[in-house]
Amino acid sequence: MTSLYRDTADRLLTELESGAWREGAMIPSEAHLQETFGISRTTVRRALALLERDGHIERRQGLGSFYRSRKIGKSISSRVDFHTEGRTHGQMPSTRALSFTARNATISERAIFGPEARGGVVELRRLRLLNGQPTVFQISVLCHVGIQDLKRSDFENTSLYALLSSRFELVVSDVDETLEAVNADGDVAQVMGIEPGIAIFNTHRIARDAAGRVVELSNNFVRADRYYFSFSGSIEEFGR
Amino acid sequence: MTSLYRDTADRLLTELESGAWREGAMIPSEAHLQETFGISRTTVRRALALLERDGHIERRQGLGSFYRSRKIGKSISSRVDFHTEGRTHGQMPSTRALSFTARNATISERAIFGPEARGGVVELRRLRLLNGQPTVFQISVLCHVGIQDLKRSDFENTSLYALLSSRFELVVSDVDETLEAVNADGDVAQVMGIEPGIAIFNTHRIARDAAGRVVELSNNFVRADRYYFSFSGSIEEFGR
Repeated sequence: MTSLYRDTADRLLTELESGAWREGAMIPSEAHLQETFGISRTTVRRALALLERDGHIERRQGLGSFYRSRKIGKSISSRVDFHTEGRTHGQMPSTRALSFTARNATISERAIFGPEARGGVVELRRLRLLNGQPTVFQISVLCHVGIQDLKRSDFENTSLYALLSSRFELVVSDVDETLEAVNADGDVAQVMGIEPGIAIFNTHRIARDAAGRVVELSNNFVRADRYYFSFSGSIEEFGR
Repeated sequence: MTSLYRDTADRLLTELESGAWREGAMIPSEAHLQETFGISRTTVRRALALLERDGHIERRQGLGSFYRSRKIGKSISSRVDFHTEGRTHGQMPSTRALSFTARNATISERAIFGPEARGGVVELRRLRLLNGQPTVFQISVLCHVGIQDLKRSDFENTSLYALLSSRFELVVSDVDETLEAVNADGDVAQVMGIEPGIAIFNTHRIARDAAGRVVELSNNFVRADRYYFSFSGSIEEFGR
């Protein structure tokens, strides 16, 4: 009998984490849960208290209970930088610049950056953490006069785009982005502190300024147990 | 010496599949490749012929060579239905309706569909194939008067949204969608013909009509070796 509220909390949590619930979604009322589970109001309250204690829901006086996802939702069409996003979700963001090196351009980099890439590119590797835990591993490729004079430490705990804007007046205006789901290979897993084989997002981005000039190419590995991507919008063409 | 062109083809393919290349992207010219790899024009041509034979690139007379991705890119903001999309990519699409059953609504379904869900919902499971290979496993939940009178076979090789529109005048207007990357569990892997643990996309969609009424809830498993998602657009807020 003492574990009925725990079973209820488990069933509710299983459902909350099924993927159908969004961060901040309102949990049905105590009366509704009482009816659905066929249990007493006291048991419902103890189950909700348990979920609140473990940080799965947030109870607001007079308003009800709300789902708190362990994953951060990244809206695809409107986005904020990593540090702002982390703080919005009550987590402490930090950025480590792992390396900053000059090298020759690959074939695709030459095709994308154009003639400027003949002189080579610089590759910046950064690890972005939330509450000290690695969440995003970013490999950025840049090709702009003067960038090679920067040092690795210039990129610590800062926004790359803010730096490019203040130092070089390079302002990102448009992005072209792809999202893939991959099994983390050994090297990436080690950097990100996860087991090899774990499913992660691998995104590639081409960022351009308003004149269409390529500012940055990036290859990002994103922990899928900490992030999901979301999209809301109208359907232009569907269902023929 | 005979394998130099094979090595060149391998290096080029590794780069093409690095994720930075989009379907249809133009491959650098033979002269460019000759210079980059430091090899003869004959070797470049043999390498390109090999890649063309294996379907990785397409050569168009007088225009050059173009990358053909093995993955289909799904644009997130403008999309077409599965059958149209498959045919556009030169593949033969088909849809199998695996099951169509009535059941009680879960808590989240009640919260999303509202009072209508008290009478229960119907769950439709479909497997969508390209050239006979399972690519998307969809679990759709529907809640509308009359839907329970349909049969499983009504959903074979057809568009669900077209059927809902013609039979019930339910027209999907807006979607709210989330994308997660997960390791396929045993059950899903079996249905999709892949090994358990392989990284796949798991998307959840709430589809509404123009009046805001929920038409469908769906839980989709998408083969990540056949699909990637893409987004192009302007940055609204970035880099603070």
